[in-house]
Amino acid sequence: MTSTTGHLFRATTYGESHGGGIGVVVDGCPSRLPLTKDEIQRDLDRRRPGQSSLTTQRQEADEVEILSGLFEGLTIGSPIAMLVKNSDARSQDYEHLRDVYRPSHADFTTEAKYGIRNWQGGGRASARETIGRVAAGAVARKLLGEAAEIIVLGWVSRIHNIEMPVHNIETPEMPAICLEDVEASPTRCPDPQSAARMETAIAAAREDGDSLGGIVTCVARGVPAGLGAPVFDKLDADLAKAMISLPAAKGFEVGSGFGGVAMTGRQHNDPFTAGAEGTPRAATNRSGGVQGGISNGEDLIVRVAFKPTATIASEQQTVTREGEAVTLEAKGRHDPCVVPRAVPLVEAMTCLVLADHLLRQQAVSLLQR
Amino acid sequence: MTSTTGHLFRATTYGESHGGGIGVVVDGCPSRLPLTKDEIQRDLDRRRPGQSSLTTQRQEADEVEILSGLFEGLTIGSPIAMLVKNSDARSQDYEHLRDVYRPSHADFTTEAKYGIRNWQGGGRASARETIGRVAAGAVARKLLGEAAEIIVLGWVSRIHNIEMPVHNIETPEMPAICLEDVEASPTRCPDPQSAARMETAIAAAREDGDSLGGIVTCVARGVPAGLGAPVFDKLDADLAKAMISLPAAKGFEVGSGFGGVAMTGRQHNDPFTAGAEGTPRAATNRSGGVQGGISNGEDLIVRVAFKPTATIASEQQTVTREGEAVTLEAKGRHDPCVVPRAVPLVEAMTCLVLADHLLRQQAVSLLQR
Amino acid sequence: MTSTTGHLFRATTYGESHGGGIGVVVDGCPSRLPLTKDEIQRDLDRRRPGQSSLTTQRQEADEVEILSGLFEGLTIGSPIAMLVKNSDARSQDYEHLRDVYRPSHADFTTEAKYGIRNWQGGGRASARETIGRVAAGAVARKLLGEAAEIIVLGWVSRIHNIEMPVHNIETPEMPAICLEDVEASPTRCPDPQSAARMETAIAAAREDGDSLGGIVTCVARGVPAGLGAPVFDKLDADLAKAMISLPAAKGFEVGSGFGGVAMTGRQHNDPFTAGAEGTPRAATNRSGGVQGGISNGEDLIVRVAFKPTATIASEQQTVTREGEAVTLEAKGRHDPCVVPRAVPLVEAMTCLVLADHLLRQQAVSLLQR
Amino acid sequence: MTSTTGHLFRATTYGESHGGGIGVVVDGCPSRLPLTKDEIQRDLDRRRPGQSSLTTQRQEADEVEILSGLFEGLTIGSPIAMLVKNSDARSQDYEHLRDVYRPSHADFTTEAKYGIRNWQGGGRASARETIGRVAAGAVARKLLGEAAEIIVLGWVSRIHNIEMPVHNIETPEMPAICLEDVEASPTRCPDPQSAARMETAIAAAREDGDSLGGIVTCVARGVPAGLGAPVFDKLDADLAKAMISLPAAKGFEVGSGFGGVAMTGRQHNDPFTAGAEGTPRAATNRSGGVQGGISNGEDLIVRVAFKPTATIASEQQTVTREGEAVTLEAKGRHDPCVVPRAVPLVEAMTCLVLADHLLRQQAVSLLQR
Repeated sequence: MTSTTGHLFRATTYGESHGGGIGVVVDGCPSRLPLTKDEIQRDLDRRRPGQSSLTTQRQEADEVEILSGLFEGLTIGSPIAMLVKNSDARSQDYEHLRDVYRPSHADFTTEAKYGIRNWQGGGRASARETIGRVAAGAVARKLLGEAAEIIVLGWVSRIHNIEMPVHNIETPEMPAICLEDVEASPTRCPDPQSAARMETAIAAAREDGDSLGGIVTCVARGVPAGLGAPVFDKLDADLAKAMISLPAAKGFEVGSGFGGVAMTGRQHNDPFTAGAEGTPRAATNRSGGVQGGISNGEDLIVRVAFKPTATIASEQQTVTREGEAVTLEAKGRHDPCVVPRAVPLVEAMTCLVLADHLLRQQAVSLLQR
Repeated sequence: MTSTTGHLFRATTYGESHGGGIGVVVDGCPSRLPLTKDEIQRDLDRRRPGQSSLTTQRQEADEVEILSGLFEGLTIGSPIAMLVKNSDARSQDYEHLRDVYRPSHADFTTEAKYGIRNWQGGGRASARETIGRVAAGAVARKLLGEAAEIIVLGWVSRIHNIEMPVHNIETPEMPAICLEDVEASPTRCPDPQSAARMETAIAAAREDGDSLGGIVTCVARGVPAGLGAPVFDKLDADLAKAMISLPAAKGFEVGSGFGGVAMTGRQHNDPFTAGAEGTPRAATNRSGGVQGGISNGEDLIVRVAFKPTATIASEQQTVTREGEAVTLEAKGRHDPCVVPRAVPLVEAMTCLVLADHLLRQQAVSLLQR
Repeated sequence: MTSTTGHLFRATTYGESHGGGIGVVVDGCPSRLPLTKDEIQRDLDRRRPGQSSLTTQRQEADEVEILSGLFEGLTIGSPIAMLVKNSDARSQDYEHLRDVYRPSHADFTTEAKYGIRNWQGGGRASARETIGRVAAGAVARKLLGEAAEIIVLGWVSRIHNIEMPVHNIETPEMPAICLEDVEASPTRCPDPQSAARMETAIAAAREDGDSLGGIVTCVARGVPAGLGAPVFDKLDADLAKAMISLPAAKGFEVGSGFGGVAMTGRQHNDPFTAGAEGTPRAATNRSGGVQGGISNGEDLIVRVAFKPTATIASEQQTVTREGEAVTLEAKGRHDPCVVPRAVPLVEAMTCLVLADHLLRQQAVSLLQR
Repeated sequence: MTSTTGHLFRATTYGESHGGGIGVVVDGCPSRLPLTKDEIQRDLDRRRPGQSSLTTQRQEADEVEILSGLFEGLTIGSPIAMLVKNSDARSQDYEHLRDVYRPSHADFTTEAKYGIRNWQGGGRASARETIGRVAAGAVARKLLGEAAEIIVLGWVSRIHNIEMPVHNIETPEMPAICLEDVEASPTRCPDPQSAARMETAIAAAREDGDSLGGIVTCVARGVPAGLGAPVFDKLDADLAKAMISLPAAKGFEVGSGFGGVAMTGRQHNDPFTAGAEGTPRAATNRSGGVQGGISNGEDLIVRVAFKPTATIASEQQTVTREGEAVTLEAKGRHDPCVVPRAVPLVEAMTCLVLADHLLRQQAVSLLQR
């Protein structure tokens, strides 16, 4: 359904960039999960613009309010409603966009679908919609940690043509990148040398009024074998949908991804070896932690490609609602690279998908206990 | 839900490679759609193994039986149940797999999830499961044609390291590849020179007991602007899920995909120009026909990466259910490259997603007529 | 799903009686529907306690805030988020209920399900949860009027043992009861003589510390033939679920209901006659406007039985969480009869079900236009 | 969704009275459930017409075929597809109904909805559709027994104006009616004296070409406290929908039902007493085993009203598709009372709802173990 994701762990987001606020209702979270406002705010702060000179200077406090679902620090099984009020809305900034379709934005398609558009901002296509996803993802993250010791971590592995040296899918254990490594640079690239080059490239794009895309890699460690499903709701299929539902996402890979096409079956197959207590372990991880749509106990690894943002500080050719060709002037704030801020989004969506499948597995395994 | 896809146009598949049969129930198809068994069978025949020397020699007649939902050649709004009986099941072929996990198959993960596995074949992970998808996709294809003149066509654009010359995303119109071009070669690559090289490569892999992966490109022409949704159920997000739910799929792209990362915003944005009757048209199509999750009226273009098949005719290292390391011998039939047969699967999933969104748009636009 | 109702026109409620507030997210409403805050508030005011001497004196302003989904007075296809902040929360009123299960309340079952309970009020079982339903129902009501000229009206037809003279299901047209007739008495019974007796009975129950139940009848006029579905999602089945999901509802009837059991088929069948323009019309309406789960164009008629409220001002026997038998003292506010206030709830649920099926019918009938 | 019921334990039915067959796909059943074809067939045999002189003489073998989902006598987590082929289809029996709408049948409404109708039988409104429900219900019944020792039993408590003496809702334990008591009479009324009078009444109705309705009572014993949900998906709300979705059902009650309206709160509330091991027990069961939408551990008790069947052996007034008034002659087979055969239907729907909520509770209680 349009504004709801998940089957058992469900998040319903609402809100546009202009209006009372942005929010989310998380339904289906098990009761008795310890949860604090700070745990939500922490993830929201990583999403927030204005964190460094690399991002847009739009200032948004984005303070979350928890309206329901908690009692004495624990979830009670009721919907957890969270709201972030809008503040920095300058609708006059958008006045010149009232009748014009910005290239590669959702302006035209929104009107084609709904016959109407709130031109005072991006509407539901606004990046602000992702606030609700991140808040819901923070709840899911907490559940994954408490119930299954699953840890989800993402980072920027590429900006434009600068790629982090190793995207290692050969070994079952990813190099031990941790949150501190990622947050050390505003680029969220954990390799310092690549990060420095990325910073330079982003600064140059800003100067030039241009924008850059990139790739976010995300890993989930500690995922038990058995999450997912064999047909339509494969674990990687749900992750693919979740990722491509993010603004500006154009590509998704799990494990070897497009690179796997260059291998033969003999090279690509992950041999099994006997792990501790006789558990089968994959000696390599070209599968990316998923086989036949179900987790195999190895690190879950996905990569998401983000196009360069459509908002640039340059003149562009476009048309008006009346079909008249016009030149769209460069105006307003401009974020040369949103990829670092996409990291918490990719993590949030990964957490939501995993939490949903963790709950679904409870039902499937009823008679196995 | 596990075995159901779609929100309004829904397909529920069932059946394993061994057992009574494979089938699908299509629910939610509008009434009064003309439909014949031949239209279903035609797509099933393209999916069927044993079509050429390139594929497995397993012979499956795969004749479909329509059990319900039609009356005097028209759909009546009831579920359309279709069944293909199993015939060529040789369970003794699988006897040696009873206690062994084949590398990069779903054997181990199925047991991890369900605590049990039908070792007489691939269970739900079997390629035979896709029969239901193709049958349902054929109904969706008919609906798209009758209701909206949408045409869906896929082809093989790459096998292993052989890539078709042009994957043209620069112009709004794809080169006019048609079904005859695709079906001219058993590789389903419409470029004759690439096709010839692919045939050679596949033959060599067969000889070598190895397998090859590849990429399927799929285009939907005639999609009206306005299909899709702005948040979780973006048109491209639903396509991503649909594609990654296919056996052996490891990557998905829409429009520029991963390649778009190498561009800047200025290079990547699709300028609008005034089309016929004032309709905005994108002068280029890096968006792949989707902007903000909603179709923009241009060709919808996706690409799906398939890994080399896990079944190879070589010895491999693995473990038993008891955790003992063993060598899995090469045995049984072996299909060196399933990518050509994945073409009708990619088309079927594209049709299912589009049909679902076409119906959803009916509700959204109630007050716009 | 627990806190969401509807398939295409969906409402997700949240909030407990104590906490930040009560709200609802309406997703799937068609765009371009004119809608004002007043239209929502009007229905909320009918639901609000403290409207007359008959109801609880708990004062709740219950002013709605629309957080998203509107632009220049029209819906834009985005989720419509509505919030009513909590104000009159006196948690000390509930201190004595911390460890005690009130008879026939949800205290014990909530703990049995979730292992935790917010004892400062009724949690999700609180009557305040219905605020979200009424707000969503008001949006649905507006859609039904604009798109199909459907009018939904409910009234109290029985309190305790006082029954309104005629529940006429013999003729296709219900007696022309209108909103003014219903709102003329605080009992919401449109028959003045019955209303007067009901007022007396409710006053006596208040005096006695006791409570009374009753029956709400609801009719939808102008429903076109063809809404509903033939199997699980019958129009009357969805109405049954909607009604029994209301607090204190114990019974549901459509058309002749339980009374139909006393008739024979010859007496019960509704003969068809030729209506205007050859449309078949049912000469009687024992079917209640639904045949085989699908509306037949006659008035839709349902009846809902509400038990006497569990909160009474009398001592009662019960047990504590530790299983100790205790006497629960009579304390706090007490509403002798909630049935009049259930009228807007029954209407809201009827509107939600009809709006959902109206949208679903758009998809079903794609090829019939 | 139209032909699917359930959220985690899902059944999708298909098939019309005329065509290849009737079937159901059960998806979401936990793996490792022992299940045999006989357990399905047993319930189907209770549903089958022609069991006694009381019912229609239409002979249907209705032998079920299990197409998938089992391996070595256990479920494997895959969809369980079951098919019953149609045999006794005499379409010439229906030729005279091609252009005529039978009163109080779904003929007219089906055409109003779909613009087309398979006049060779009742289409999806045919009683044969319930075969799929009963087969699915048998799987659910087995799960309830294996996983939670829940037993579901229904019986006929009223036919026309003959009512079984006691519908005892005063004590938490229902009188110990068992399956043998119910099956002792073709009326499925466990009270022999009432049963005898019912038999006479049904025989008289048959003679007279008329039909009779009745009430089915159903109880579920052993339901643990905690199943259900507090808002839209209340356990009794889901049961209400399930029951009203049955052919000819016009009313639903849980616990005291409509009768509870005649009580006051003081009379109606179920006092808690301390049960074994300190578990609260309700001293009376006017709640019918559900409080606030969640089971309380007492017997779950529902009652369903079925109208007299619309098919009678008498002339009736009606209209044709062209709107012409005609007299419909009495023709074909006629079943004077379907209520006894509705008993397995009511049981099946109860089992389906309980199985779904049993699985849902697994997810909710993840952190409570």
